[in-house]
Parts: sequence; C-alpha cells; structure tokens
Amino acid sequence: MGNYQRIVLASRPQGAVAASDFRLETHPVPDIGDGQVLVRNHFLSLDPYMRMRMTDAKSYADPQPLGEVMTGGTAGEVIASRHPKFSVGDKVVGMLGWTEVGVSDGSLLKKVDTTHIPLSAYLGAVGMPGMTAWFGLNQIIRPQPGQTVAVSAAAGAVGSAVGQLAKLKGCRVIGIAGGRKKCDYVVQELGFDTCVDYKGGDLFADMKAAAPEGIDGLFENVGGAVMDASLARMNPFGRVALCGMIAGYDGHMMPVHYLHMALSMRLMIQGFIISEHMDLWPQGLAELGQLVASGKLKYRETMADGLAAAPDAFIGMLRGRNLGKQLVKLA
Amino acid sequence: MGNYQRIVLASRPQGAVAASDFRLETHPVPDIGDGQVLVRNHFLSLDPYMRMRMTDAKSYADPQPLGEVMTGGTAGEVIASRHPKFSVGDKVVGMLGWTEVGVSDGSLLKKVDTTHIPLSAYLGAVGMPGMTAWFGLNQIIRPQPGQTVAVSAAAGAVGSAVGQLAKLKGCRVIGIAGGRKKCDYVVQELGFDTCVDYKGGDLFADMKAAAPEGIDGLFENVGGAVMDASLARMNPFGRVALCGMIAGYDGHMMPVHYLHMALSMRLMIQGFIISEHMDLWPQGLAELGQLVASGKLKYRETMADGLAAAPDAFIGMLRGRNLGKQLVKLA
Repeated sequence: MGNYQRIVLASRPQGAVAASDFRLETHPVPDIGDGQVLVRNHFLSLDPYMRMRMTDAKSYADPQPLGEVMTGGTAGEVIASRHPKFSVGDKVVGMLGWTEVGVSDGSLLKKVDTTHIPLSAYLGAVGMPGMTAWFGLNQIIRPQPGQTVAVSAAAGAVGSAVGQLAKLKGCRVIGIAGGRKKCDYVVQELGFDTCVDYKGGDLFADMKAAAPEGIDGLFENVGGAVMDASLARMNPFGRVALCGMIAGYDGHMMPVHYLHMALSMRLMIQGFIISEHMDLWPQGLAELGQLVASGKLKYRETMADGLAAAPDAFIGMLRGRNLGKQLVKLA
Repeated sequence: MGNYQRIVLASRPQGAVAASDFRLETHPVPDIGDGQVLVRNHFLSLDPYMRMRMTDAKSYADPQPLGEVMTGGTAGEVIASRHPKFSVGDKVVGMLGWTEVGVSDGSLLKKVDTTHIPLSAYLGAVGMPGMTAWFGLNQIIRPQPGQTVAVSAAAGAVGSAVGQLAKLKGCRVIGIAGGRKKCDYVVQELGFDTCVDYKGGDLFADMKAAAPEGIDGLFENVGGAVMDASLARMNPFGRVALCGMIAGYDGHMMPVHYLHMALSMRLMIQGFIISEHMDLWPQGLAELGQLVASGKLKYRETMADGLAAAPDAFIGMLRGRNLGKQLVKLA
C-alpha cells in the first residue's frame, strides 16, 4: 500500500517551540492484525495542550515520548478493517496523532455521522474544544441569564464556543483576543457583546470599560496579565473555569498578581481537563451537534495544507496566528 | 459612670500600618435607652482582616470609616441593660470594636457559657478563628483520612485549629510558620506531623521534603511565595481554602507564580469569609466547644495589656510576632 508520513518529537523545546523539535519520517503502511483498523486521517487537530506534553514537567499527562508520533486528535476514514465494529469507508475520529495513516484497536476510535456535520467539525465545535467550552461553562461557571461572562483566547476553537454558548444562555459576553481582526470576528460574526484587544490599548482600563457591572464567570485560556485584567473585575462569588495558561507553556512562570481577588470576592477557581469528564460527552456532544447542525453555533477553521506544514502551523497557533480551530488537512 | 477609652482610625495606612494611623480617645460612658445594653469589654480580638478594612480598596466589606471606632470582636460583661434578653453580669461576645465600653441593641450580641470554656476562647478557638478553620477544612478541603493537609500561618489562631482538626480526621498535617519557635510549638504541643519554617532554609526544598506524597488540601492564610511553595506540591484534584493573604495587606501585590498548578493538577481554589456562613455556626461552635472543653483542641493566646497597647499588638501580629490568638486584655 505504499508509504505514509508521520511526525515525531525530535527534541524537547528549549524555550519557544522550534520547527527543529519535530522530525518528519516516511514509513511503509503497516499490515493490520485481527481486531485492528487502518485509518487514513483527513484532518489533524492542533491544540495548545500539546505544548505542555512536549516538556517533561509534572502535569496531568505523561510527557510525549521522544522519537514517537506526536499525540493529537484526528478525523479520517477507515481504509482497512479486521475489527467487527468498523468497515471500510466509515468516518471516524480518534487520537492517532500527527500521521497520515494510523492503526487502532478500535478502543479510542469513534464512528461519526457526517450527514449534517462536516467531518472536521468533530475535531472542533463538536469535538474536544466544543466539549471543553460546554463543560467549563455549564459545569463550572454555571452562569445565570443576565450575568457577565468573560473568555480569553475568544477567537480560538474553545473561546468562540464559550462565548456563543453563554450568549444562548442570556449572558452578556466579553471576549478577550489578540488583535482587531479577532475582536471584530467574535463581535460581528459570533455575536459577543464586546471584545478587548489585549495587544492594543490599555488592557486593564479596557477590561474595566468592557465590564461596567463586573464579571461573574471567567473562562480562562491564557493566564498571566490577561487573567489578571479579568480577575481585577470579578464580582462576589464569581467562578473561574481555568482551562489553559498558554502564555506560560514556554517554560516561563507567568505570575498572577490579582489572586487576592479570589479572597476578597470569594471566587471559586477550578482547573479542569476535559478528558476526565467522559461521562458527560454524550450529553454535551448531542447539544453541540444540534447547535452546529442548526447554525446556532458557528465556527471557523484555519487549515494548514499537508502534514509537513503542521510544525509551522502549531508554532503559529501558540503565537495566536490562527482564527478559530487550527487544523491540518492531510488527505 | 465616668469615662472610657476607645481607639478610632485616624488615617489610612500608607504602606505598612503605623501607630499614628490610630487615635486613642476618652469619652464619658453613655446612658442607654430602651432596648439597649451596656457592655464592659474584657477582651478585644485582633485579626488580620482588620488590615484590609483599613484601606478603601474593593473588598468584601466596606472600609472602616475614618474617625470611627475600629471594628473588632469583643468579649465582656453586661454592666447595664434595658433589654429583656440581657441582664447585668451576663458574659457576652459581640463586635463592639476597639473600645473599653460599648452599647448594643442586642442584635449582634451573644450570651456565652464560661463554665467549661474561658471567656477569651470565644474570640479564638470557639469563635471566629475556630469557625474559619472548621469551615475551610470541612466544607472546602473535605480531607479524607490519610490525605495530606498543609496550613500556613500554622501557629496562628486559625492555622493551629486547622492542623489539629485535620489530625483528628486522620490526616497527615504540614504546618508552615515563621521561625523555629512557632514550628516547635505546632509539632510538639499541637501534634502536627511536621512544620516548615519559611524564614529559615529553602522554602521550596523544605516543602518538597515535608510533603513526600504531595499535598491534597491546602489551607492558605498567607499568599505570595508561601502559597507558591505549597501549590508546587499539590496533588491532582487538590482543594485550596483561600482564607487570607496577609503578606499582601500592605498594598503590595504579592504575585503567585504557581497558579498553573491549578490547571495541571485540576485544583479547586475557593476564597471564603466566615461571616457569610452563619448558618453553620451553631454546628461548628458546638463541635469546637466540645473539643476545647475536653482538651482535644488546644490553643494559646498572646495577650496585650490595656487598650493603649492594641495598635502595637496589631502591628506585631501583622509581622507575625504573636503565637496563637492575639488578644488585648481590657479589664
């Protein structure tokens, strides 16, 4: 069946991720054994959590091993099967990594229906990022209609879903994003009430102006000064869903100067990782699927072309170059 | 009935609190009207929260007004009453402030039984500090037997109760305190398993050595680097009861560098203020009273002599000079 390409972790980043931390390899497509499925990946998902895996610091997941295929969510099509539950042609999502072709025993592979929802959306609004937004908003922030919800990295795959879901709940929504283009996108296309551009102007003054009645729920994807500007505006009994601290992934400790607000405002801050809440996925994905299929939950994709473009796209995503979900088109 | 003394807030502190921020005044003892009670205070409680009230920053309580009696918990005796529920000689606790004599309408005044529990303990182990410890441990940290609980300001009124209550629950307890004397006290007299002296040695290395199995519950009274050293050792799904950030009360922003642990370890951090949980006071005080009366919950008091000594004692407490509950003996 010829050869396929894959990308392995060549070295752990020293500071910022470099393209040289990755290595593109070519291998012959393997034969499959009994109970196995061969998948051709059409899309690879690039996500901030991958940056954490590249280091060997204490975290929720084991570090990505050197010399092995980079971890990552994938959506593709079964091209050979010796597994009773999968047939050639099935559309599937899984965690096959940065690779054009992958072998699965079926345990982490899920068939999806692309009749009303495009395959790639199962890596975004109807996948892990969508579930992350859904869980953090509904299970941690639990906003009431009329309350104010702020979300950082607002134009990203998770943030854009958080804001739209909060709007559907009747909340006032403040986005925080880097650059005018992203802010215009979340306000004009996604319906956020306002957006603070953390790259332009005075972050703290702009957040104060954007939140005249304070913030009741914060969905935090960034950390550092961006988080501080929101913490400074929190209302009593506010909830913070701590989802990401992308600003700190390069090994820098990003100090937070406003944690005292958690005391004076009696805040609840909850860190979470969506893969630990699989019990809620069926419920969440059903809701998200319906919202996407009916056009109530919008999303955008930034698509890199071909596996070889993945490292550069990943580095760009860490620097905020993408709008919406960052994907790599593989086939 | 002669004169009495009281202390008012003369000026808001510029940086550290100075004795000149307070003013001692002499007034004639007032007459009381119908429904009022006149109380001679025997003890005044000095507590870290008072530092926050002295500034006019956004917080959970209104700032202490200038020129008015400093807020504060008191324990004393009724010396005149035109209130049906109080009689001369009743022992009472209230919030009459930094004053030798106070008038109350009875609404915030509570009669206490000093048969088995000394009057002063109602300002400490069987009062607000004890309830703070009880609530944070039982309602936020909710430790399981065998888990590790860390508490900062361990030799203080709240911290010493937290550690003993956690020991009674079968936990391993790590104290963090300033100086050898305080550490010896919490280990040798209160039965903590170990204590890290944040003033001596290497705080982070010492916390690592003290918590070989990590920390499951953190009761945080200090903030800043002391909090960081504990956050760095937190186990997955740990809980942090955020009770005080005394290090930051002087207007300095105390940055926290390890908040990313809240993400990677999926921590829950809850700020709280005990006066908002009055519904649990009867239950908590009953438990605490029994433990104190039976000698299972030990406490110490640092007693300043006379109202005029209160400002210096308060400044000393903010600098960690006290062991156990800081009180002022008034009569």
